[in-house]
Amino acid sequence: MEVVDILKKYSKDIDVEIKNSLGTVDPEELQKSTQHLIKAGGKKIRPSLVVLSSEAVGGTVEVAIKTAAAVELIHTFSLIHDDIMDKDEMRRGEPSVHVLWGESMAILAGDTLFSKAFETVLETPVNSISYERVLNALKTVVDSCIKICEGQASDMCFEGNFEVNEEEYMNMIYKKTGALIAAATRSGAILGGGNPEEVEILTEYGRLIGLAFQIQDDYLDVISEEENLGKPVGSDIVEGKMTLMVVHALSNASDEDKEELISILKDGEDTDVDRAIELFEKYGSIKYARDIAIRSVDNAKNLLETLDESEATVSLAMIADYVLQRIH
Amino acid sequence: MEVVDILKKYSKDIDVEIKNSLGTVDPEELQKSTQHLIKAGGKKIRPSLVVLSSEAVGGTVEVAIKTAAAVELIHTFSLIHDDIMDKDEMRRGEPSVHVLWGESMAILAGDTLFSKAFETVLETPVNSISYERVLNALKTVVDSCIKICEGQASDMCFEGNFEVNEEEYMNMIYKKTGALIAAATRSGAILGGGNPEEVEILTEYGRLIGLAFQIQDDYLDVISEEENLGKPVGSDIVEGKMTLMVVHALSNASDEDKEELISILKDGEDTDVDRAIELFEKYGSIKYARDIAIRSVDNAKNLLETLDESEATVSLAMIADYVLQRIH
Repeated sequence: MEVVDILKKYSKDIDVEIKNSLGTVDPEELQKSTQHLIKAGGKKIRPSLVVLSSEAVGGTVEVAIKTAAAVELIHTFSLIHDDIMDKDEMRRGEPSVHVLWGESMAILAGDTLFSKAFETVLETPVNSISYERVLNALKTVVDSCIKICEGQASDMCFEGNFEVNEEEYMNMIYKKTGALIAAATRSGAILGGGNPEEVEILTEYGRLIGLAFQIQDDYLDVISEEENLGKPVGSDIVEGKMTLMVVHALSNASDEDKEELISILKDGEDTDVDRAIELFEKYGSIKYARDIAIRSVDNAKNLLETLDESEATVSLAMIADYVLQRIH
Repeated sequence: MEVVDILKKYSKDIDVEIKNSLGTVDPEELQKSTQHLIKAGGKKIRPSLVVLSSEAVGGTVEVAIKTAAAVELIHTFSLIHDDIMDKDEMRRGEPSVHVLWGESMAILAGDTLFSKAFETVLETPVNSISYERVLNALKTVVDSCIKICEGQASDMCFEGNFEVNEEEYMNMIYKKTGALIAAATRSGAILGGGNPEEVEILTEYGRLIGLAFQIQDDYLDVISEEENLGKPVGSDIVEGKMTLMVVHALSNASDEDKEELISILKDGEDTDVDRAIELFEKYGSIKYARDIAIRSVDNAKNLLETLDESEATVSLAMIADYVLQRIH
């Protein structure tokens, strides 16, 4: 079985839940704007993690499916609002929501998806599990939403600040990307009836693959076009984006090299991409980042081995590996 | 006791909860932007309604105080996002959040307040009440958030559409303004342990005063400056805003008058305010709107009389009357 098959296995049920949730939104303009990115696709990794984490602790798909849909709704909400903030005009091969419906409707579409996510968690059937579990799953999801906002705000505050250290950077990407993935695995484990140890293991697994996911994303930006299936090399460098490689290179470079790298990042020209990558290589920053991603995935898989082996734990291990192979 | 004293009675406890909730937001820029409107004031009517509704069914302040704070956080979230959408640059006598921190941070501030609201409800102490009640209170609050988004979207879609009928208009203002007030009273009644009948009574009370609140707001715009403590008369007319008076006048006016009123509303000049008000008066639209507000408040107070009388029910009746006296 391939990862794509694992994700396909649950995506139909997840889609049904999402469709039910958004199908009642009124007026029509608002409904369409909430559905746009969902219809445009997406791999459904996060919701699949909720369901697999429930199964990994002996729980069912049914008990986790509402929260799985909710996690995808939250992910979509954050994409819509991020695209407004970052002025990104394309997403999933389609014009962004704010491009099609304007900024005001896009803000509302995000807010609606956010509200719908919580409503959906609260629809978890309580005949099979206790209210306490639903509340704890919801706490986990809500906590990750706060972190997503904080992470995005930190990312904005970091812009043009080249003194950000590795700890601050890692904390930012944990909040911005890792927290929702960790909430997906944690809420699944809670709803599936995992004991406290299992819940912590799956939370940590989610956090680790979340970090690897973000670092791999940054890594893919500096590897050659052929390896990267055609995405232009160095777009993060042109945009002056903070990445683990930038943070590492800046904190290890000579004063002269540091100054040069900062001027390339501030400059916004794509002619200096090769030189920036040369500097990353000089200080071992690309290998450093890649190693952290690989180590995170290894640690995540080691954690899974402490759980009873099942089809779900095997799938979770495959998803961990997939994070490192992932090509844009 | 005056209404201002009733609101003052709970505002200190509500402020403490809000302060605790927002005090941990990081980075500092995000924290400040979430606190800005809260620090600028606000009468705290909505959170007081949560607490009073708990007391009105024999519940405590303690059991409702977290949800009371949450309702104020949601109200603040909606003000911040609305100000971005409506390009309103002032709020509560201060520059709006997006004016001070930019649109991106304002979107995030709203999203953070939204997340924090749900976190706060989930902090309701469960030793005193069951998980089920907290979940039901949360469902109520989440449902009102969906309605707020839908109401705001409908309001946007109505812009420039002069065919909106009274039912559509009333449904829009119920969602935009009434739903959160009804959620305040309903969640308070649920948390306070009200029986199903009491919960329905307080929900309907909230819905009715919420409608009266919005209609009174529109009414205040067309009464004379002296009665209205200095707010310029007719700003809604200049902005071409849909109000109950507009909807009523348009559906009752002769073709000629209808055409004239529409052209005034589209025109955006303040020279025609008097003529628009004259047309409202010609068709009895001002009296019609005012009568609905008065009748809603009367019905709300009649409903309260079916509950056992207490200090809380007397306070709720006073708040209902206050909605009609309220001056900007």
